Amino acid sequence: MVAGGPDAFAVGFRSMSEQKKKQQQKSGQKPKTAIQPTREENYAEWYQQVVKAADMAETSAVRGCMVIKPWGYAVWENIQRGLDDMFKATGHQNAYFPLFIPLSYLEKEAEHVDGFAKECAVVTHHRLEPDGEGGLKPAGELDEPLVVRPTSETIIGATFAKWIESWRDLPLLINQWANVVRWEMRTRLFLRTAEFLWQEGHTAHATKEEAVEETLQMLEVYRSFATDWLAMPVITGEKTEGERFPGAENTYCIEGMMQDRKALQAGTSHFLGQNFSKAQEICFADANTEKQYAWTTSWGVSTRLIGGLIMTHGDDDGMIMPPRVAPSHVVILPVLHKEETREAVLEYCNTLAKDLRSRNYDGRPVRVELDLRDLRGGEKSWQWIKRGAPIRVEVGPRDMENDAVFVGRRDRGHKEKETIGREAFLGNIADMLTEMQDGLLSRARANRDEHIRIIDEKDEFYAFFTPEEVEDGRSGVPVHGGFAMTHFCGDVELEEQIKKDLGVTVRCIPTRGQGLPGQDEPGNCPFTGEKSATRVVWAKSY
Amino acid sequence: MVAGGPDAFAVGFRSMSEQKKKQQQKSGQKPKTAIQPTREENYAEWYQQVVKAADMAETSAVRGCMVIKPWGYAVWENIQRGLDDMFKATGHQNAYFPLFIPLSYLEKEAEHVDGFAKECAVVTHHRLEPDGEGGLKPAGELDEPLVVRPTSETIIGATFAKWIESWRDLPLLINQWANVVRWEMRTRLFLRTAEFLWQEGHTAHATKEEAVEETLQMLEVYRSFATDWLAMPVITGEKTEGERFPGAENTYCIEGMMQDRKALQAGTSHFLGQNFSKAQEICFADANTEKQYAWTTSWGVSTRLIGGLIMTHGDDDGMIMPPRVAPSHVVILPVLHKEETREAVLEYCNTLAKDLRSRNYDGRPVRVELDLRDLRGGEKSWQWIKRGAPIRVEVGPRDMENDAVFVGRRDRGHKEKETIGREAFLGNIADMLTEMQDGLLSRARANRDEHIRIIDEKDEFYAFFTPEEVEDGRSGVPVHGGFAMTHFCGDVELEEQIKKDLGVTVRCIPTRGQGLPGQDEPGNCPFTGEKSATRVVWAKSY
Repeated sequence: MVAGGPDAFAVGFRSMSEQKKKQQQKSGQKPKTAIQPTREENYAEWYQQVVKAADMAETSAVRGCMVIKPWGYAVWENIQRGLDDMFKATGHQNAYFPLFIPLSYLEKEAEHVDGFAKECAVVTHHRLEPDGEGGLKPAGELDEPLVVRPTSETIIGATFAKWIESWRDLPLLINQWANVVRWEMRTRLFLRTAEFLWQEGHTAHATKEEAVEETLQMLEVYRSFATDWLAMPVITGEKTEGERFPGAENTYCIEGMMQDRKALQAGTSHFLGQNFSKAQEICFADANTEKQYAWTTSWGVSTRLIGGLIMTHGDDDGMIMPPRVAPSHVVILPVLHKEETREAVLEYCNTLAKDLRSRNYDGRPVRVELDLRDLRGGEKSWQWIKRGAPIRVEVGPRDMENDAVFVGRRDRGHKEKETIGREAFLGNIADMLTEMQDGLLSRARANRDEHIRIIDEKDEFYAFFTPEEVEDGRSGVPVHGGFAMTHFCGDVELEEQIKKDLGVTVRCIPTRGQGLPGQDEPGNCPFTGEKSATRVVWAKSY
Repeated sequence: MVAGGPDAFAVGFRSMSEQKKKQQQKSGQKPKTAIQPTREENYAEWYQQVVKAADMAETSAVRGCMVIKPWGYAVWENIQRGLDDMFKATGHQNAYFPLFIPLSYLEKEAEHVDGFAKECAVVTHHRLEPDGEGGLKPAGELDEPLVVRPTSETIIGATFAKWIESWRDLPLLINQWANVVRWEMRTRLFLRTAEFLWQEGHTAHATKEEAVEETLQMLEVYRSFATDWLAMPVITGEKTEGERFPGAENTYCIEGMMQDRKALQAGTSHFLGQNFSKAQEICFADANTEKQYAWTTSWGVSTRLIGGLIMTHGDDDGMIMPPRVAPSHVVILPVLHKEETREAVLEYCNTLAKDLRSRNYDGRPVRVELDLRDLRGGEKSWQWIKRGAPIRVEVGPRDMENDAVFVGRRDRGHKEKETIGREAFLGNIADMLTEMQDGLLSRARANRDEHIRIIDEKDEFYAFFTPEEVEDGRSGVPVHGGFAMTHFCGDVELEEQIKKDLGVTVRCIPTRGQGLPGQDEPGNCPFTGEKSATRVVWAKSY
């Protein structure tokens, strides 16, 4: 698993940057890329520039709140559709609960409120009145402050307590698509914003076993969605105590590796035990009409997935969209220089768009955009490269004469375009998109696997996570580290110390059977020498 | 148009209640209905009881905020899907903007902030800290209070000002699906709640003509959606000055008539002129590179539509869902009394469900629910009647033997069920649903048209809107009035006086050409005698 040389398609991040370095040395020039800085020069800044150049999102005047632009929002719509179908196929129904949570509700579960108290937006007034200086001020103070939901366990739990009477009402399987607010001090578009969009599943069950099963089922839904839709390979596992959701008994997660080798927690599924049901009286009469507390779960993914998508697939020319979530699969760019062929080329392109839309990919019509904006061809083409549209098709008078199209694939270099006969292109479109989807996953997996390392010594561990000296001309932290798999005694203070020393945490205790190296043999913790039954995954993280 | 006797199918509200009255007189007993009170006895209370009995929504612990239950939310999802397709077909893209609006933004458009200042939820703090008595209190006061969006003109306008540079960026056609908050003092589920879900379209154009065209185009989208999807006939028209959206030049609306003959404003489309663009510097360089202010529009519908759906179609047994927005089209209720036939009946029902799902209605698979809950058959059946599922299918051992199903249609009486051969039922399902959809619209239209009256005298107008004496045993306001079409001089004080006297307002100045009576001839205002070019629609309203 560990190395496994990248195949012909899988040109990973590192080899890309090495190629560039060679070019650079040869020509004595800095190679031009659409995104400046490159990933290698400054990964954090590269990310911000891609978000901007790909028209995904932007900051707003409201601290920490983002504007999700149409191209970014369309990705979210595709994510929603894919996940929603999977939730419904596993028996869940959508519902909607209040945005506001009375302070007294939040206080009911002690760990829970501790976990969120420092980042709550609080509504204290319900109108505005003149402030006497020509402006307005808050007025109509509320008897009880309302918290803008950071998550909805407490308000949904209060409703569940009303809905559930007997064992016949269980399981109760509910999902909500909503916005939530967590007043983060340091924000980054998609990855950490004060307001974000997400889904939160909330379920109640008659037995512990069923609730655990649900928790793991939804973890599996997230794993397969990340893998099959986002082309983002993830490790599933359980969080250590320190990283658990406030109020949960166990928190499970999916963790992806970004191109800078940091981990991104991309989704979580919580077994809440009876903590919330006892705090909120979510109980039911069992078959013997005896009162029992329900066992509950919650699970969620958010617009953070879009950040993961960018950091998994993007390159130094911008975003690369996996076809299954791409807002458009094919962008048609008519070449309309000459007035005398203009009409004919337009008609040809319109017909092409129609024919493409009559083809299916992934069970639905191919999504096509015909870009008729009055811009220079090069400018348009680069905009779609930066946005990561899977396939660009240029059609000029000569192509039309030859009944052919000039095709550029975003998973290949931007100069690597080819002329394809129209019929062949139409006949092959679904396969081409499937190949791209699979190729992106292979590439991401190869890149990740290359940077998973089994470590058995403390020194090696510390060296693995310590960056080399910064070279001249680089402004960011050099890319380093990866996922370190070590045995671990589980000591909480030790974990805290390592976090302090290196900024590294246990991302998860991985689930067995996902092909990770060295999981099956017991061993010894490299830090304390104590016996350990399984390896854990350490990494720096977002 | 006015009367036009209801056809065989169109058993309107009044004739239903008259039928019942006759039964009642005959038997000397109050007829049993699933909803108590009936529409005739107390319409307002009937509404609340239907919302509850149909599992659509419920109140929450948060003042004025509702919980939308799965059956109600599924209606919203269908509404969203239908509308979203229409928005995209007319060139709009979805995006997402912050929940919070800085107070200073809201203050920029003077009329706008005046319109919303009295109902704003205001966030003033960003964390909680111990209050010294074991509880928590708001802490971390914000430098500038944030208003939870009551509508997003100001925050979206600020973004538009950044996005738009030249005429090439226009038109900008954006829609947002979101929650908004208006701190209403008197709330009613779906019709008026503090938080509600909606869509808000926001567009910017280079010319006044284009912006007006957009405003009217979206009004037409709303009209056709209400008519074709919700089976709710609506009148389109323009609002008078007093009823305009705060900050708009013109507000257009669709107005439906509920079964108590009150009007429901079901959607609005606003031509904002250059009011917001001047307040927020939404400007562009025209073809001569001269600075121009953009012309903007906004338009929205909300979860209020679901309230309209209930009040247009519901009867004294509960909700009636028009098939196009019904969460399930067919509910299968297996009769499983006998242990020896249980398995076979279940298998038969599963196959039936599968076969139904392989049929299309409205371009998508028929939506089927197989109700296997461990409840008595009568209880289950009545639950689906109250929820308004279009078609109920009971299958017992004898039906199975005859390869037939026992079908109940929600648009007919609950006892009026018939046995239909399985194949015939399958072959006919799409037609049956189409017939129901059309029938509900005809019935609603007949009911509405019966209560539109041309009025030319002040006395008749006042009599029309004055309820009869309350009969014994009735607790609500007797159903009365309707839509009065009169000429009108347009005097604002007169309009105010009529509102004070009767609780009646001008719902709209109706668009020409929608077949309303007496629109084309000029006449005289019945209140002042002044000349008037067109009739307006008056009604009590929600």
